[in-house]
Amino acid sequence: MLLNVVFSHIDHFGFLENGTFKQRYLLNDQHWHKEGGPILFYTGNEGDITWFCNNTGFMWDAAEELGALLVFAEHRYYGESMPFGEESYSNAKYLNYLTSEQALADFAVLIKALKKTLPGAQKSSVIAIGGSYGGMLAAWLRMKYPSAVVGALAASAPIWQFIVPCGEFYKVVTHDFTISGTNCSSNIRMSWAAIDRVSATGEGLQWLSQEFGLCNPLKTPDEVYGFKAWLQETWVNLAMVDYPYEANFLQPLPAWPVKVVCKNLNFNTGVSDKQLLNGISQAVRVYYNYTGDAVCLNTSQTATGNLGFLGWFYQSCTEMVMPMCTDGVADMFEPQPWNFQAFSDECYNQFGVRPREDWAEIVYGGRNISAHSNIIFSNGNLDPWMSGGVTRSLSESLVAIMIDGGAHHLDLRYNSEFDPESVIKTRALEVRYFKQWIKQAATTQ
Amino acid sequence: MLLNVVFSHIDHFGFLENGTFKQRYLLNDQHWHKEGGPILFYTGNEGDITWFCNNTGFMWDAAEELGALLVFAEHRYYGESMPFGEESYSNAKYLNYLTSEQALADFAVLIKALKKTLPGAQKSSVIAIGGSYGGMLAAWLRMKYPSAVVGALAASAPIWQFIVPCGEFYKVVTHDFTISGTNCSSNIRMSWAAIDRVSATGEGLQWLSQEFGLCNPLKTPDEVYGFKAWLQETWVNLAMVDYPYEANFLQPLPAWPVKVVCKNLNFNTGVSDKQLLNGISQAVRVYYNYTGDAVCLNTSQTATGNLGFLGWFYQSCTEMVMPMCTDGVADMFEPQPWNFQAFSDECYNQFGVRPREDWAEIVYGGRNISAHSNIIFSNGNLDPWMSGGVTRSLSESLVAIMIDGGAHHLDLRYNSEFDPESVIKTRALEVRYFKQWIKQAATTQ
Repeated sequence: MLLNVVFSHIDHFGFLENGTFKQRYLLNDQHWHKEGGPILFYTGNEGDITWFCNNTGFMWDAAEELGALLVFAEHRYYGESMPFGEESYSNAKYLNYLTSEQALADFAVLIKALKKTLPGAQKSSVIAIGGSYGGMLAAWLRMKYPSAVVGALAASAPIWQFIVPCGEFYKVVTHDFTISGTNCSSNIRMSWAAIDRVSATGEGLQWLSQEFGLCNPLKTPDEVYGFKAWLQETWVNLAMVDYPYEANFLQPLPAWPVKVVCKNLNFNTGVSDKQLLNGISQAVRVYYNYTGDAVCLNTSQTATGNLGFLGWFYQSCTEMVMPMCTDGVADMFEPQPWNFQAFSDECYNQFGVRPREDWAEIVYGGRNISAHSNIIFSNGNLDPWMSGGVTRSLSESLVAIMIDGGAHHLDLRYNSEFDPESVIKTRALEVRYFKQWIKQAATTQ
Repeated sequence: MLLNVVFSHIDHFGFLENGTFKQRYLLNDQHWHKEGGPILFYTGNEGDITWFCNNTGFMWDAAEELGALLVFAEHRYYGESMPFGEESYSNAKYLNYLTSEQALADFAVLIKALKKTLPGAQKSSVIAIGGSYGGMLAAWLRMKYPSAVVGALAASAPIWQFIVPCGEFYKVVTHDFTISGTNCSSNIRMSWAAIDRVSATGEGLQWLSQEFGLCNPLKTPDEVYGFKAWLQETWVNLAMVDYPYEANFLQPLPAWPVKVVCKNLNFNTGVSDKQLLNGISQAVRVYYNYTGDAVCLNTSQTATGNLGFLGWFYQSCTEMVMPMCTDGVADMFEPQPWNFQAFSDECYNQFGVRPREDWAEIVYGGRNISAHSNIIFSNGNLDPWMSGGVTRSLSESLVAIMIDGGAHHLDLRYNSEFDPESVIKTRALEVRYFKQWIKQAATTQ
C-alpha cells in the first residue's frame, strides 16, 4: 500500500481562502491492469482511512477480479487530513470547511489529478465505493460528479435518514434483539426503570458501578443519564456489527454478538432489579470485554478510536441532521421525542453553529433521485441504518440489494467461510454491475 | 408581475456565516392552471432580473400554451439581490459568496420554498430556463439538482467555453462580419494598424477623437489600447445581437445590425487610413447611436447598464475562466495569445483572488455530461458563444438545436413577424420537450 498526499483547496466554493491542505490517500496497484484497468475509489468517511482500508476487504477481492487499481481517499478533518493541522478543531472558523460538499469536491479533484498524473490511468473508469457515511458520499459523488465516476456502490448508506420517520432506526435495533433471543429486547426495555430505581440511593449507585465494573464510578443520580445513554449506544453498536463471524470493527467481538449478548438476557419477567441488571452487565461485557483484557468499563467511549466522533457531531450539527426518537413501545428504549430546537441549541453551545434542517434534502434530492444512474444501494436487514437506506430499486440502474442476515455493510468485508449465501451473492452481483458500468463507459466515451 | 423576496443563506456551503439576504424574484400567474400546472423558472444571470424578464418573451408565450406559472429569480450580487447591501462589492470578504454554486443553491432553495408555500404548486413540475450564463445555470441546475427541476432549456449557454480552443469565439465573430458584407471583416482587420499609424502623432490622436466623437478625447498613445479594446468589444456585441428585427437588448439597434454596420465597410482595400477609419466610425455609430440621441461616444461602456460587469469580471476571475485568444489570421482582430498568468495577476490586483483554471471543468463535468438528462441546448449559428456551446445532441434527452440565422438566444425573445423559420420551429420543439418532461414526471413521481 502506498501512502500519498495530494494538495487540495481548503475551500472549493470560495476564493478568498486560498490555502491548501494535504489530503491523504492510499494506493495499491498490485492487481492493476494498466492502460484501461479500472479504479476502485473508496470515498473515505468519518475516520482514519487506514482503518477503513483494513475493513474493506471486498475491494481487494474485487480488484483482483477486475484488474483494478485501489485508491482509498481520506475525508478532510479525519485521520491525518487536517486542513489546519492540529488547530483544525480549535474553533468555528477552522471547522467551517468540514462539509460533505467540500469532501466530494476533494474526491473529484483527486480523481482528476490521478487521471492526469498517473501513467495508464487516463482512460480508466472510476467506481466509487463506500460504506455508511462513506456510502452516502459514494452515491452523492456519482450524483453530483458523474463525469468523475461511472458508478457507485453505496453500502449501508442511509441517504434518506434525514427524511424518514424518526423512530425507524431504533425499531430496527430492537428487532435485532427481539429475534436474537427469548425475552432479550423486553428485558432491555425493562432495564431502564430498574436502573432508575436502583440508582435512587447512594448504595444503589455504588452497587451499579461495581456491578458494571465502571472505571469512573457513578457519584450522583445526575450521572445516570449518561450511563443509560452509554448503554443505549452499546445496543446500537451491537446491532450494527452483528456479523456472522468473529470480527473487530467497532470492538473485538464473537460471531453473532447480539445472540451472545441475548444469552445473558433470556430470563423471564419477574426477576429482581439487581438480577436484571446483572444480566445487562454480563451482556455489555460481551461488547466491551470479549478479549478479557478490560480492567474496567469506560463509559466515555463506545467504539474504536479510529472514528472521529467530534467531527461527525459537527457534521450532524450543520447539514447531516438525522432526526431520531424512541417511544418505548415500538422500541426497547426510554421514550425520547425528537426535539430539533433543543438539538440546535446544543449545537450552538458546542460549536457556535446551528443545523439547517432542510438542506440535506435539498442538496441531495431527498426521495426524488430517479434522474441519477449507476448506483447500487446495498443494505443488511439487521443493520439499523437500513431504516434510512434505499431498500427498493428505483430504476434499472438505481439498484437496491437487501442482504438477509447482514449487519452494517457486511458486503464490504473480506469474504469468509462463515459468510451467509446472501452476501456471497450480493458481492458477485455488485462486481457484475461494476463490469457492466465499465463496459458501458467504454462505448460512450 | 409580482415582485417578491425570499430570504436565502449568504453561505450555503458553510455554517459559520449564518446571515441571510433578500433574494428578489418575479412571479406571474396570469396563465397558471393551479393544481398541477407547471412552473417555468428563469435562472437569473449577471444582471437585473426585471431586464431579463423583459427580454425573455418566449416564456410568456410558453406559459400561455402550458398553463404555467412564471418565476424569474435574480442572481445574487446582481440587480437588487445584494448579500451585503451596498457594501457587497466593497471587499474580497463580502464578494466571497459570489459563485455559481451559491447561485444554484439559491435557486434550489427558492424552488423548495415555492412548492412548500405557494398554494397549488406542491406537485408542479418545474422547468429551468435561461440564456447565456443564465442558460449555463439552467443546465447546471438540472445537472446538480435534478430533484428540483424536471428539465432545462439552456439557450446560447457556452458550458464548454472553459475547455474549447481559445480562438473559437473570435472566429465566429469574424465569420458574422465576413458573411454580412463585402470586405467587411477584412477592413476591420486592417483598421487596427491604421489606428496605430494615425494615433502615433498628437494631431492624429485629436483627429481620431473627433472622427469618433469621443466623450473623452484620447490624450496619449497609451490610451489607444483601451480605444481598440472598446472597438473589439463593440464588434463582439454586434455579433451577439444580430437579430432579424429592430431590438433593444444591449443597445437599441436596427434589424440585422451587422449588415447595416458592414454597409459602411464595403470599400476595396487601398483606401487611406483616414478613409478606412471614417468607415469604422460610421459603423460603430450604428451600435452606439441608432436613436440619433448620442451627443458623444463613451468608450467606458459598451452595453446596457442592466448587466453587472464588475460581478461578472469577479466570476471570471474565480471559477468562470474562459480562455480567449486571437491571431489576426483566422479572425479579424489583433493577435493576442491567451495568458493565464497575466490574467491571474490582473485578478489578484483587482480583487485579491486568483482564478482556478480547472475547477469549472471538474465541478460541471466538462465534455463528459452524458449521464444527465432532459436538457435542451439551443444555439444560433451567428452567436459567438455557440463556440462554447453544445451543438450536437449527446443523447435522446440531451438535445442540441441549432438555429440557422440566430444570434444570442434569439429563441428566448418574444415571437415576431420577422422571425426566421428556424427559430419558430425551435420554439415549437422546445415547448414539445417541456410537455414531454412534464408528462414523464407525472408518471414517475
